[in-house]
Amino acid sequence: MAVGVPKFPVMRAVDGVLLGTYCAQIKQCVRDDLLVVAMDPESTCSAVFTQNAFCAAPVVLAKQNLRKEPRWLVINSGNANAGTGAKGLQDAQSVCLTLSQITGGRMEQVLPFSTGVIGESLPVEKITQALPKAIDNLSEDNWAQAAEAIMTTDTFPKGVSKVVSLDEGSITITGISKGAGMIQPNMATMLSFVATDAKIEDGLLQRCLQHAVEQSFNRITVDGDTSTNDACVLMASGHSDVPELLEGSQSYQYFCAVVNDVFSELAEAIVRDGEGATKLISIVISQAKNDQEAVQVGKTIAHSPLVKTAFFASDPNWGRILAAVGRAGIEDFALDKVSIFLGEICIVNAGTKDSQYTEAAGQEVMDAEEITITVRLGRGVAQQTIKTCDLSYDYVRINAEYRT
Amino acid sequence: MAVGVPKFPVMRAVDGVLLGTYCAQIKQCVRDDLLVVAMDPESTCSAVFTQNAFCAAPVVLAKQNLRKEPRWLVINSGNANAGTGAKGLQDAQSVCLTLSQITGGRMEQVLPFSTGVIGESLPVEKITQALPKAIDNLSEDNWAQAAEAIMTTDTFPKGVSKVVSLDEGSITITGISKGAGMIQPNMATMLSFVATDAKIEDGLLQRCLQHAVEQSFNRITVDGDTSTNDACVLMASGHSDVPELLEGSQSYQYFCAVVNDVFSELAEAIVRDGEGATKLISIVISQAKNDQEAVQVGKTIAHSPLVKTAFFASDPNWGRILAAVGRAGIEDFALDKVSIFLGEICIVNAGTKDSQYTEAAGQEVMDAEEITITVRLGRGVAQQTIKTCDLSYDYVRINAEYRT
Repeated sequence: MAVGVPKFPVMRAVDGVLLGTYCAQIKQCVRDDLLVVAMDPESTCSAVFTQNAFCAAPVVLAKQNLRKEPRWLVINSGNANAGTGAKGLQDAQSVCLTLSQITGGRMEQVLPFSTGVIGESLPVEKITQALPKAIDNLSEDNWAQAAEAIMTTDTFPKGVSKVVSLDEGSITITGISKGAGMIQPNMATMLSFVATDAKIEDGLLQRCLQHAVEQSFNRITVDGDTSTNDACVLMASGHSDVPELLEGSQSYQYFCAVVNDVFSELAEAIVRDGEGATKLISIVISQAKNDQEAVQVGKTIAHSPLVKTAFFASDPNWGRILAAVGRAGIEDFALDKVSIFLGEICIVNAGTKDSQYTEAAGQEVMDAEEITITVRLGRGVAQQTIKTCDLSYDYVRINAEYRT
Repeated sequence: MAVGVPKFPVMRAVDGVLLGTYCAQIKQCVRDDLLVVAMDPESTCSAVFTQNAFCAAPVVLAKQNLRKEPRWLVINSGNANAGTGAKGLQDAQSVCLTLSQITGGRMEQVLPFSTGVIGESLPVEKITQALPKAIDNLSEDNWAQAAEAIMTTDTFPKGVSKVVSLDEGSITITGISKGAGMIQPNMATMLSFVATDAKIEDGLLQRCLQHAVEQSFNRITVDGDTSTNDACVLMASGHSDVPELLEGSQSYQYFCAVVNDVFSELAEAIVRDGEGATKLISIVISQAKNDQEAVQVGKTIAHSPLVKTAFFASDPNWGRILAAVGRAGIEDFALDKVSIFLGEICIVNAGTKDSQYTEAAGQEVMDAEEITITVRLGRGVAQQTIKTCDLSYDYVRINAEYRT
């Protein structure tokens, strides 16, 4: 199930970035599960990684290699190579080594990524045998295939492609993401690979990435579980005609704004594909003292199983929302300042049910597939939005059936 | 559904504490939903209340009245009188006033408690009309009826009764609890009323209560949601022949140990009755740096929907447990020190799958209704146990059907 599956867009090629996929039969033999991305030599590259204390082996290696002029990404689905100890690290290195031997680069220039079952050994031989084929397939036009190859429990491929039109020329930004469960990116709980042909140095690219991630992937949650593996990469080939983007320039600001849009759409696609999701819920926390407080309240609501099951039932159960707000750990919190809106309908005013509220009006909002809840805290001017989905029978089924 | 429903025990009367129930038809008219408890004048009384920032009206009032020599408790199920603003407070006061007029006491001596739907007005008239009947029914022998009267989504009444045998005589401790959902008592997310005939001053009784609650109700969770309403009361009539319990005395220590046992059993009964529960899971976190860290890791595991659905599926999915440990927010955490046991079976050793582990051995542990998971953190000597249940289809059904 998924909420309002977005049509897979036309994916504009990014000059200087090639993608090749192949079926290494890691967990299944129906679709490609191996992706190689090759960047032109002058490219810059930035990335953020899971904050789970237990990083998977590929994350450990990718973090080390990020500052060594990465030229290749190698991504497999079907096996996370997590909780695999020293052998897991050797396995990830073997994959990088084989790729570098085929392509004639240094193995430190390869960033490895894995997603899938935790705790099983990576089938290194299957991957190294498939690598030459994936490399043979390298092309600028394989974004759709790449989006499919990184899927695990995803029900649809996720891609976004946009153009930044500037006076000096245009910049393309094209990216993919995957993720459906174990989603509370605290950067990051999914995989996302975004490429652009902009010319931009590493440090500035990294700041652009971090800002975009903070407002996109770090504002979504499916089940509150943060994975051991996931990562988000932003690559820049520098092939665009637009001169180098410099800090503080208008071009850079405009570029960052479009990167934010790309990331937000990729993040929202993950929530739409949340395991068992039947509703897309945007939780807007406004009038907070600061952003951190707004996110804290928003995530407490988004993680409440009682709120999530009420959404599944299309039930305007404001009592559960209020109870979640109350346990969010905010100090000196005055209930009589809080108001709650379902869509445009005020349901709670001054901490209690609004006298104008009617069940019929609330029900109409809740019956929709996409719902916006606004909670005004009456404490300040900060505002943040958390996106999440409901908790359905299918969430339980999917995660009870997905056996170790 | 419930896990290993305990037989309702013989409830020993507590001399000096009377209970009366009646059906006020607050939400249904099948069983009693109103309970009055009367304490003898010389009684002492202690209580702890929900730490949800949004206390329900009865909690606000009960907190105020706790230090005014309480003599009566009045408890209704079917309506929480929460999120009801100024009117809610007036309603709770009306109930206390009526009770005091009938019994001839002061209204400040009444502690009110409500549990049920949030956000609906308390049906005061129904309650005040039923009060004389509940008071007519006052008797020392009504503990079983009382346990039934406070139930909401509970599937069975919860009671424990024990005797402390001392050289000087014996002390009786008898209590009841209710709760099945919105359970992460951070004291408190349920209702529990425990009485004893011990002679003990208020302050000491309060310390005994707080210690017992910390190790019982504050160590269980069903869904991580903390309610707006709930409370735990420990009353002492002083009618026992045993001389007054004094701080530091052996009698007091022994008394406290038995109070702990009573509370632990009442708390465990709530987890057994967790909404949709098919498994009772004890999560033992050992080798932690301190208790706080152990509880933090234990609760992160206990709240993970992925871990809970794996338990529902009897799936020894250690990867999900490891991922939850990793996101628990512990600083400087070394994965290679962590080991995990399913029952007595080592499944993870030094951060990765134990070489001796077999699926058959793990499966045998997971197939049982009651499971103990031990996670050794390799950081210190502190140990804490969190009790929880699994996340099943029925949890979703119950909470999707329980409409506002």
